[in-house]
Amino acid sequence: MSKVTDVNEYGEFGLIDHLTKSIKPKLSSTIMAIGDDAAVIKNARDYSVISTDMLVEGIHFDVRYSPLKHLGYKSIVVNLSDIFAMNVVPQHVTVSIAISSKYSVEALEELYEGIETACKFYNVDLVGGDTTSNLKGMALSVTAVGTTTDKETISYRSGAKVGDILCITGSLGAAYLGLQILEREKQLFLSDETIAPELSKHTYLIERQLKPEANKAAIEYFKKISLVPTSMIDVSDGLSSDLMHICKQSDVGAFIEEAKVPMIEEAKAAALEFNMDPITCALNGGEDYELLFTLDPMDIEKIKFMPDVHIIGEIVDKKDKLSLHTPGGNIHPLRAQGWNHF
Amino acid sequence: MSKVTDVNEYGEFGLIDHLTKSIKPKLSSTIMAIGDDAAVIKNARDYSVISTDMLVEGIHFDVRYSPLKHLGYKSIVVNLSDIFAMNVVPQHVTVSIAISSKYSVEALEELYEGIETACKFYNVDLVGGDTTSNLKGMALSVTAVGTTTDKETISYRSGAKVGDILCITGSLGAAYLGLQILEREKQLFLSDETIAPELSKHTYLIERQLKPEANKAAIEYFKKISLVPTSMIDVSDGLSSDLMHICKQSDVGAFIEEAKVPMIEEAKAAALEFNMDPITCALNGGEDYELLFTLDPMDIEKIKFMPDVHIIGEIVDKKDKLSLHTPGGNIHPLRAQGWNHF
Repeated sequence: MSKVTDVNEYGEFGLIDHLTKSIKPKLSSTIMAIGDDAAVIKNARDYSVISTDMLVEGIHFDVRYSPLKHLGYKSIVVNLSDIFAMNVVPQHVTVSIAISSKYSVEALEELYEGIETACKFYNVDLVGGDTTSNLKGMALSVTAVGTTTDKETISYRSGAKVGDILCITGSLGAAYLGLQILEREKQLFLSDETIAPELSKHTYLIERQLKPEANKAAIEYFKKISLVPTSMIDVSDGLSSDLMHICKQSDVGAFIEEAKVPMIEEAKAAALEFNMDPITCALNGGEDYELLFTLDPMDIEKIKFMPDVHIIGEIVDKKDKLSLHTPGGNIHPLRAQGWNHF
Repeated sequence: MSKVTDVNEYGEFGLIDHLTKSIKPKLSSTIMAIGDDAAVIKNARDYSVISTDMLVEGIHFDVRYSPLKHLGYKSIVVNLSDIFAMNVVPQHVTVSIAISSKYSVEALEELYEGIETACKFYNVDLVGGDTTSNLKGMALSVTAVGTTTDKETISYRSGAKVGDILCITGSLGAAYLGLQILEREKQLFLSDETIAPELSKHTYLIERQLKPEANKAAIEYFKKISLVPTSMIDVSDGLSSDLMHICKQSDVGAFIEEAKVPMIEEAKAAALEFNMDPITCALNGGEDYELLFTLDPMDIEKIKFMPDVHIIGEIVDKKDKLSLHTPGGNIHPLRAQGWNHF
């Protein structure tokens, strides 16, 4: 009998690595293949940056609390975020949808309304797609494309150097806590349908989960101040996990100063409501779609007036691995405990 | 209560049209959005041509008779075929996969082996993708990209003119009949597991279904003879259905000479075995991935030595609609009865 290995033994990243390790790019136009937020392809005079993502019902979203309009919006945003994370502005998207017969035309109209709203807001064109049946639920596959004429302005995961400053935009943990609230209210509702969901006091957290935004403003600001992050990634899996991607591909270590990790009060309060340590939510929450990037220390002056950006740590030698410095002076090793859809 | 419309009321093409009709491209870089085999995007000096497709288990394939290696191969080929149908050579692909827990790592390795084999054979690079869980079965989403420096060599569905000659490469109906054979043997096997499937005498037909090829040679030949088809599409839905796409978007009619529609003997014989009219299989079968194109009559000389190409009809005025001329001199209206995955 042939060997049967469960995919869970690898996890998402390990599995992609494993499956594609023998597949080597051969064309000179392939600048970056698998392994970053997006692929980079050389055109005649500019570069196309391409990213693709699949969202599956029951795995990535629950239509019982995710309105289809928001879902359509989010499916676009998470892909645009990957292009921004390359320091490139996306311009085009394609959307493929597989749906079971439980979805009506009206439901799909709602979904496309969200897709259209996101395209308008981010100034991208929907240029293609496919619509087909699915045996169960819905699966959405989105591909986003951006172009840049200057190769030197593309930020990869692999460019972080020892001594670089580690920065994050916005705040963390909100999307994860929004999901906890939605799950709690769903469970309450399922156990007793007379209980109305209590969502109003957590509007912001829930919106961060259901209708996240990609950080276009940060990329525009980088351009304005002529700054190219030495490395960058968007926080989709969680700060710890995404920092590990940077460190692994840059062959470095890093530390995070716990006290500097940005969380809004509402998220901290929600964490405590769930008996969770707020920093754990910030480190492992995921789906914040903030930008985690590294800077040459010589460029620190450039970001001094940049809105909503936070210095949270530093890149160190690989042998020092990844660690969290607590306010009490302790040093904890960082582990990836982010999303893993296997 | 809000209105609930079943997606079947639209069919695949009607549904995409309906859902995207309000979404208009706004960027000057968008040359062709939804509505052709692929999107066309203007880069700084060349053009990217992008197509995307979703294949769903139980809808587009049955893993009980589709080996995963062939499935991986086919998932790439059907997308490359869309790029060839724009008269462009594809160079890059991304692959996203959603899989249920019934698939082992070894099964996915097989799938990727097929993907890799197709990439090598067609000289394209796999540059990105996503791997995630699925609630049931497998869904594969592939995006293919090609570039061309000469905008004038791109063939759209919309360029056919009255008097143009209608041509098809290769032969039709084989993939459809291959599927009929696989389905018959599956049913026999399900009714009595001691019956071994009888597939050996239909190897070619089965291969056309399970491991089709895209017609790269035709595109290379067009380049060699400096020919740009006035319109082109790949036959994925069936000759009738795909000719309708050309006619609708070119605002013309067309006729097909039944006697000129190419079918190999093996396919004709299989059709008769199933008590089907061979021409019906050729017209409505689908998944042949041959190229259906139109030529300015002044260019007819150019294809006289082109291998494996057949003149099958002519473009006529829109008011004459689409028709089939039988060898007996009758004229039948053509109807689309191809694949419809709703």
